[in-house]
Amino acid sequence: MDDPSRHLERVRRDAPLVQYITNYVAMNVAANVLLAAGASPAMVHAREEAPGFAAMADALAINIGTIDGRTAEAMPLAAAAARAAGTPWVFDPVAVGATAFRQETARGLLAERPCVIRGNASEIRALAGLESQGRGADASDAVAAAEDAARALAGRTGAVVAVTGPVDFVTDGERAARVANGHPLMPRVTALGCALTGLVAAFVAGGPRFEATLAALACFGVAGEIAAEGARGPGSLQVNLLDALHAMEPGTLDARARIDPA
Amino acid sequence: MDDPSRHLERVRRDAPLVQYITNYVAMNVAANVLLAAGASPAMVHAREEAPGFAAMADALAINIGTIDGRTAEAMPLAAAAARAAGTPWVFDPVAVGATAFRQETARGLLAERPCVIRGNASEIRALAGLESQGRGADASDAVAAAEDAARALAGRTGAVVAVTGPVDFVTDGERAARVANGHPLMPRVTALGCALTGLVAAFVAGGPRFEATLAALACFGVAGEIAAEGARGPGSLQVNLLDALHAMEPGTLDARARIDPA
Amino acid sequence: MDDPSRHLERVRRDAPLVQYITNYVAMNVAANVLLAAGASPAMVHAREEAPGFAAMADALAINIGTIDGRTAEAMPLAAAAARAAGTPWVFDPVAVGATAFRQETARGLLAERPCVIRGNASEIRALAGLESQGRGADASDAVAAAEDAARALAGRTGAVVAVTGPVDFVTDGERAARVANGHPLMPRVTALGCALTGLVAAFVAGGPRFEATLAALACFGVAGEIAAEGARGPGSLQVNLLDALHAMEPGTLDARARIDPA
Repeated sequence: MDDPSRHLERVRRDAPLVQYITNYVAMNVAANVLLAAGASPAMVHAREEAPGFAAMADALAINIGTIDGRTAEAMPLAAAAARAAGTPWVFDPVAVGATAFRQETARGLLAERPCVIRGNASEIRALAGLESQGRGADASDAVAAAEDAARALAGRTGAVVAVTGPVDFVTDGERAARVANGHPLMPRVTALGCALTGLVAAFVAGGPRFEATLAALACFGVAGEIAAEGARGPGSLQVNLLDALHAMEPGTLDARARIDPA
Repeated sequence: MDDPSRHLERVRRDAPLVQYITNYVAMNVAANVLLAAGASPAMVHAREEAPGFAAMADALAINIGTIDGRTAEAMPLAAAAARAAGTPWVFDPVAVGATAFRQETARGLLAERPCVIRGNASEIRALAGLESQGRGADASDAVAAAEDAARALAGRTGAVVAVTGPVDFVTDGERAARVANGHPLMPRVTALGCALTGLVAAFVAGGPRFEATLAALACFGVAGEIAAEGARGPGSLQVNLLDALHAMEPGTLDARARIDPA
Repeated sequence: MDDPSRHLERVRRDAPLVQYITNYVAMNVAANVLLAAGASPAMVHAREEAPGFAAMADALAINIGTIDGRTAEAMPLAAAAARAAGTPWVFDPVAVGATAFRQETARGLLAERPCVIRGNASEIRALAGLESQGRGADASDAVAAAEDAARALAGRTGAVVAVTGPVDFVTDGERAARVANGHPLMPRVTALGCALTGLVAAFVAGGPRFEATLAALACFGVAGEIAAEGARGPGSLQVNLLDALHAMEPGTLDARARIDPA
């Protein structure tokens, strides 16, 4: 694997314009994570303008966390516009197994060929199941239990699939690697996974998607580790995470990143 | 009254799935408060899936802070599904006296029998008035001036009614108690009352609602007091509040809780 | 220029009710900035109630950051109601040059005669262009390059126009001034410009709009400077900013404010 700092430095240099159609819980923190990493966020989400904007953005991310009829209609239009324009787009299938509405929305989005899919183990298993056995989500799924689903999903869709958890698993269907960064307090802060999806979009905007996805996961995880060192709980962890991401030294990132072939 | 820590420990042990259909100002902080207390938040709010989700959640909370035509339509459907499924649900009638749109929406929601209603004095008076004289809200109402309205509202609707302010007043129509925890800086942070409503839902998910409501109010107030000790203003208060809630020791909670029969 | 603290003290004394129809990224931080300054925020945005509320609010602000068909419909209705009732209203034309949808929405809003328009250089140039050459936005525009556009826009619309950046430029078409407060880390926190727009609305609620706008910009900039002194990055900057705004001493504000005629 190449040094993850190379990808972070590219984001800082290019300040990619990342359009993120995301849920209302995540909008603020996701925009702040993108800014802290050096990207330019744009939370443009309406049907009336999201497709046109996706054609000129450097990357697009789509997250179904709080979809409603209006956003569920805008999302595939934006994804299709991104695909047509060659804009890489990243899909975050939040709680996809929980309701039929999410499954249908996700099915339509998969058809638009995301460049990367990022989810937890339950979501990746449910998403893989959409196209095979139709299994639902199980919030207690371990990352290891989703590796086969991730490989299958990557193979079928052509996407890089990232299963995040205590140790992340990333595959493009052929290659696979694990990222062992992060801190147990991170899941106690809402929407950090959603924010990470936006960060992946910033990293893949100008780089090879498998390596860039690994670099984004390592960068976010290392920032979380540094943040936890000075945190007294989830409130200060979130504050520190933005500070750490903004201040991340390339040498620190490369030294602390734990990326290994799977 | 029983020890409030018993209820907090139940939330931490069971990690209840709390669906919260809330306003856009509160979504992030409400989810973070639920996570800090050990619950599992789900901000599922669309008409297309909110009712089905409410039937499988452990508790539901509904807050009309930023309603629009779409959410005002989804809310009573979700409340009705919760009622039918036996899912306890908590109602936060933000600024109900301010507009006819809020009054109509609140009327429809009251018909679905909330388990707990939490609001400030003005909101509880306005809500009680909906069914009698139709009075509007008065933002300067003191908690004491809303006690009769709270008793009347509890009697008519069967809900536990919690009027929060410097000293909270809680009644189920027969019993009544006051909670004297909290800090004057808390109202200078937006959406903390909305977040408290979500916390009440987490507490009543598996416990007796009158006692669980009192415990949630005391727990949030004690966390606010601890947070204020190290805060330099409303920004650091919010950060510290999440840290304090996450770190809350049962013994500290029970020692500092000021719950008294009214 | 008069002392900016006079305006801050008026906001603290009167606690103006500021209705802010804003984007989903900014809602929480904008409400917290208003509370920290002593105002009373109300994020009432639905077509069903926003116009009626605007008629009774002390000021209204409108921000098109994440407009969709629903909010784009409510905004001109609320602006028209504010205008009819004599409620001063402030317009924040986020990314107005980026899409035709934003340009059309902005055009409709300008027709309702905002009292103040606040944007960055690119937005003010694009907005001025709407009525002349139809130029698009350029995110790299410097404030100095937007001064002519600001003067022209103020002259045509009758609004005070504030172009914010490293040094802000404010004009009512006849008078003009610059405000040289703030810190380079502030643009790395999302939605601070949107929050500033809400603060401007609070300041113009009861004061002369040209002087009140200058005071709001200076107050926010000084708070940012104080916040940056103790910040380790954008996360702690935002926390400190709310603390600093809440704790702002009138003497400190007047001593640090850098407002000069242009």
